[in-house]
Amino acid sequence: MPEHTKGVNEDTATLNLRWADALIDGIVATGVHHAVISPGSRSTPLVLAIERRRDITNWHHPDERSAAFFALGLASHDRKPVIVIATSGSAPAHWYPAVIEANRGNIPLLLLSADRPPELQNCGANQSVDQNRLFGTHVRGFHDPGPASPEAIDYIQALGVRAGHQACWPNPGPVHLNLPFREPLVPKLFPKSPKSTTKRTPPEPSIIADQDQLTRIHACISKQPGLIVCGPKTFHPGFPNAVTRLAEVLGTPILADPLSQLRFGNHDLSHIISRYDSFLRNPDFRQQHQPAWVLRFGAAPVSKTLLSYLKHNGAHTLLCDPLGNWPDPLHQVTEMIRATPTLLCQQLLEMNPVSAGGNWFKDFAAQERAINNRQPAPESLPFEDKIIGEILECIPSGATLFSGNSLPIRQLDRWSGTSGKAIRILANRGASGIDGNISTLLGIAAASNEPVVGLLGDLTFFHDMNGLLAMRDLDATIILLNNGGGAIFGQLPQAELKGFEKHWLMPTGLDFSHAAKLFGIDYRRITKQAEFRPALREAIAAKQGTIIEVMIDRKLSRQRQTDYWQSITGERSQA
Amino acid sequence: MPEHTKGVNEDTATLNLRWADALIDGIVATGVHHAVISPGSRSTPLVLAIERRRDITNWHHPDERSAAFFALGLASHDRKPVIVIATSGSAPAHWYPAVIEANRGNIPLLLLSADRPPELQNCGANQSVDQNRLFGTHVRGFHDPGPASPEAIDYIQALGVRAGHQACWPNPGPVHLNLPFREPLVPKLFPKSPKSTTKRTPPEPSIIADQDQLTRIHACISKQPGLIVCGPKTFHPGFPNAVTRLAEVLGTPILADPLSQLRFGNHDLSHIISRYDSFLRNPDFRQQHQPAWVLRFGAAPVSKTLLSYLKHNGAHTLLCDPLGNWPDPLHQVTEMIRATPTLLCQQLLEMNPVSAGGNWFKDFAAQERAINNRQPAPESLPFEDKIIGEILECIPSGATLFSGNSLPIRQLDRWSGTSGKAIRILANRGASGIDGNISTLLGIAAASNEPVVGLLGDLTFFHDMNGLLAMRDLDATIILLNNGGGAIFGQLPQAELKGFEKHWLMPTGLDFSHAAKLFGIDYRRITKQAEFRPALREAIAAKQGTIIEVMIDRKLSRQRQTDYWQSITGERSQA
Repeated sequence: MPEHTKGVNEDTATLNLRWADALIDGIVATGVHHAVISPGSRSTPLVLAIERRRDITNWHHPDERSAAFFALGLASHDRKPVIVIATSGSAPAHWYPAVIEANRGNIPLLLLSADRPPELQNCGANQSVDQNRLFGTHVRGFHDPGPASPEAIDYIQALGVRAGHQACWPNPGPVHLNLPFREPLVPKLFPKSPKSTTKRTPPEPSIIADQDQLTRIHACISKQPGLIVCGPKTFHPGFPNAVTRLAEVLGTPILADPLSQLRFGNHDLSHIISRYDSFLRNPDFRQQHQPAWVLRFGAAPVSKTLLSYLKHNGAHTLLCDPLGNWPDPLHQVTEMIRATPTLLCQQLLEMNPVSAGGNWFKDFAAQERAINNRQPAPESLPFEDKIIGEILECIPSGATLFSGNSLPIRQLDRWSGTSGKAIRILANRGASGIDGNISTLLGIAAASNEPVVGLLGDLTFFHDMNGLLAMRDLDATIILLNNGGGAIFGQLPQAELKGFEKHWLMPTGLDFSHAAKLFGIDYRRITKQAEFRPALREAIAAKQGTIIEVMIDRKLSRQRQTDYWQSITGERSQA
Repeated sequence: MPEHTKGVNEDTATLNLRWADALIDGIVATGVHHAVISPGSRSTPLVLAIERRRDITNWHHPDERSAAFFALGLASHDRKPVIVIATSGSAPAHWYPAVIEANRGNIPLLLLSADRPPELQNCGANQSVDQNRLFGTHVRGFHDPGPASPEAIDYIQALGVRAGHQACWPNPGPVHLNLPFREPLVPKLFPKSPKSTTKRTPPEPSIIADQDQLTRIHACISKQPGLIVCGPKTFHPGFPNAVTRLAEVLGTPILADPLSQLRFGNHDLSHIISRYDSFLRNPDFRQQHQPAWVLRFGAAPVSKTLLSYLKHNGAHTLLCDPLGNWPDPLHQVTEMIRATPTLLCQQLLEMNPVSAGGNWFKDFAAQERAINNRQPAPESLPFEDKIIGEILECIPSGATLFSGNSLPIRQLDRWSGTSGKAIRILANRGASGIDGNISTLLGIAAASNEPVVGLLGDLTFFHDMNGLLAMRDLDATIILLNNGGGAIFGQLPQAELKGFEKHWLMPTGLDFSHAAKLFGIDYRRITKQAEFRPALREAIAAKQGTIIEVMIDRKLSRQRQTDYWQSITGERSQA
């Protein structure tokens, strides 16, 4: 128990603040330095504890849903837990979509919900709902330390440390602390701030694969044609060099998802293949290129074409995941390897594996090159392929590109190519929802000193419009691809149904320039491709929030895509 | 198993639709006739089943949060379950705030979330999250019938009937059905629509109190001064007459919350007291008027003044609730009566209870009259008391007034008075959140043929701004009381803290006229009281969505309220 906290007969409000102080101090010891706050009375002790620290930047949002996604953005940029605070009642329930995304996307969050004390629970008291295990199976941990108690100050401080650690290891994700407070909530005299705890969180350990397993794997990948598939994951900084070196030694293509962060950067790009969603549509190529083994890192890749290629190909499939995950939606994994990816690559390299030789890698590289060299059909209207190309050309090294789900991430997957520029690509691919994307993007912008550009469809934009409230003071550019509703459904069989527009496409029909005015954000509408590049350059140079709405003709875009697939795969293409 | 469903080797898509058809048919048999749909692919069989029925009106909203609150509005108007449909992933998590409100507010909802089948669960498949018991303790029931099966069509139809009943009895509330579907989802040939089920839901039974308990209660309430307190609840249509007759016989005031629906209507209003939040602030009156007994119906009333008067007054406190609720946040209830409220009143009347006589009732009635006759301080600026008075004067009998939480419901409680006009007052008082209020209001408007007027603060308005998307085609008037943020916090000790505006008030600073333009809604801004009445009359006559923003000076309003309290209670008033 810290020195200053010893006090007999202290009042409830002072005790509440001392309790919150100790908790926040414990959390801060784990490296946390952002808090996102929504308004409320019951959460007052927590807000006061945050307010009087200089080592936490606090952010505010009256819509808890946007607040939680904003925190998710901060945390996905920094890879450190972010505190989220809301009052009691239905308020923390608005966090749920972001909690689910954080859970599936492995983003650390510390959810601090204020609550009413036991005597106001389950007896019809105002704004009291059952907040116990509010997020069910979707959190790494749930803690209910009860109302503030002078006997347990050291416990709540230790719980802060522990919760911060639990949000990071073994599997990063959200941790929920439900914190009941008795009234009064505002102390008349403020207690001294707590002495910082000397407690430390353990650093992340290394996970080394079993030696017998390594021998087996080495035998499997040597002298046989194989594939390395890197899906969405934030790998350690050493991973790109380790995995590309392994690929080079083995003569193996790396099929790299845009969210593997392998397509962009100053590592060796010679074995990175990014155009597989195009050329794997060609059944002849698929048939003639069946790998003997597949070594997977990270989550399942975005491309359905790649997934169908990996399904039932008979390859010995190895999946490297250091922890308890099992990201194998195809049920093709022969063997799971529990190892830190970078270390696994390094250990395999030390065992001197031998390439299968032949044209295996060259064939993949030739496909990649052919598509890179292709000239897209000239067109004055804006389309996603050209928009994405120009974004990647215009944004500087160090910038972050945040991609919306649904069509944007699939189009980015198809059309990004590779580049030596260090561009970080982020997306909410945990639950892959169209929700909270504006707030996530703005949270990333809040954490970043470099330009942040978002690529969002119009339904995604609409879904989190309230998130724009945080944009006024932030430097971020939103490219709003307006194709008139949920255009991804136009690529599904539902497009042929008579209720298609009403039940699936659901265009909002809104003129989003009014949304920009409402939230006081610079806005440009683009109807010609030629207007896009200068608008984007201007937005990035302006260093303030800008929305560039790009009007896309859904049907023409669909046709352009179909034409493209036919041009590279011939009549037998799989649309 | 219905005749037409027998088919060997039917394809998965046809089976999915047949399964959804049977489920929806079972649900419709329980009296359901509205469905609110958000976009998605996995939910296609459910949407197709809804689409091909003529007895379900379907509504659409791309933001699932607003969709669920819209359904809550429909259901709170009709008191019948409403279907809500969303796709898999984080989509149904956006329902959570509305689910919590429906749970605590006893509003029946049927939540149909589409899901991916078991083989795509917990293996890293896209948009698959754990939807099992997604809403934890906040639903009346959770059902996981598994993927469509030709052997279990009669089961899924019966489950529809059962879920509809479970949402209504014994305690109305939300019921969640999680429905996994295997692809493909769109059948090539549509199966015949199902024959309507002959299954029926049992009608609501009567709950009659124990005879010994009745005798005890009769003895307690006879010849002793007491109070009847009616809190928020939708009572049976016979209740107003039964309870007012009981009050008359006993010479007992009925302290009637605005949400008891007793303040307005063509029943006997002579014993209805509505001004208690004002006159019970007078400590002299409180001290001289201590009841020997209190008979409570419904939830705890909104007025904190009334609650503090009921706390520790030593009265024998009886709480009539027919079911398993225990709405006693004061912990003062001596005895719970399990009976249908109307029947309890009628049975007690049949026992011929005797009034205590004296001035007991007259004293309450005199206080009520004195405040009714009071002339508010003249003022050209708009303030809540005058706005509320004019709304109640302008809206016709049969209209619904929906009140936001936080300040509006408390101000309505203070200033509504009583009237013979049949005005229904609704509010989301389950969790009493500032969330989803626009959508709830619009759901009520969608169910109603009479004018619907909402009274919402600016933070409440902001929180559910996306809900406005449903307003274009509906006849509803929103009175937006803009007092610059969470003004209720200005009445709490937090108002004195230096971070008050940043952490608690959190004004959005938005010009809401742009929101009206964005959503294509008529808009008027009012800065003088005299402008309000013509604007409201015009809006009601226009029979289309209108927003009337009333600019309120938060500090002057607070001062006006303090002055008022002092004028009626003297120096010893409790602010």
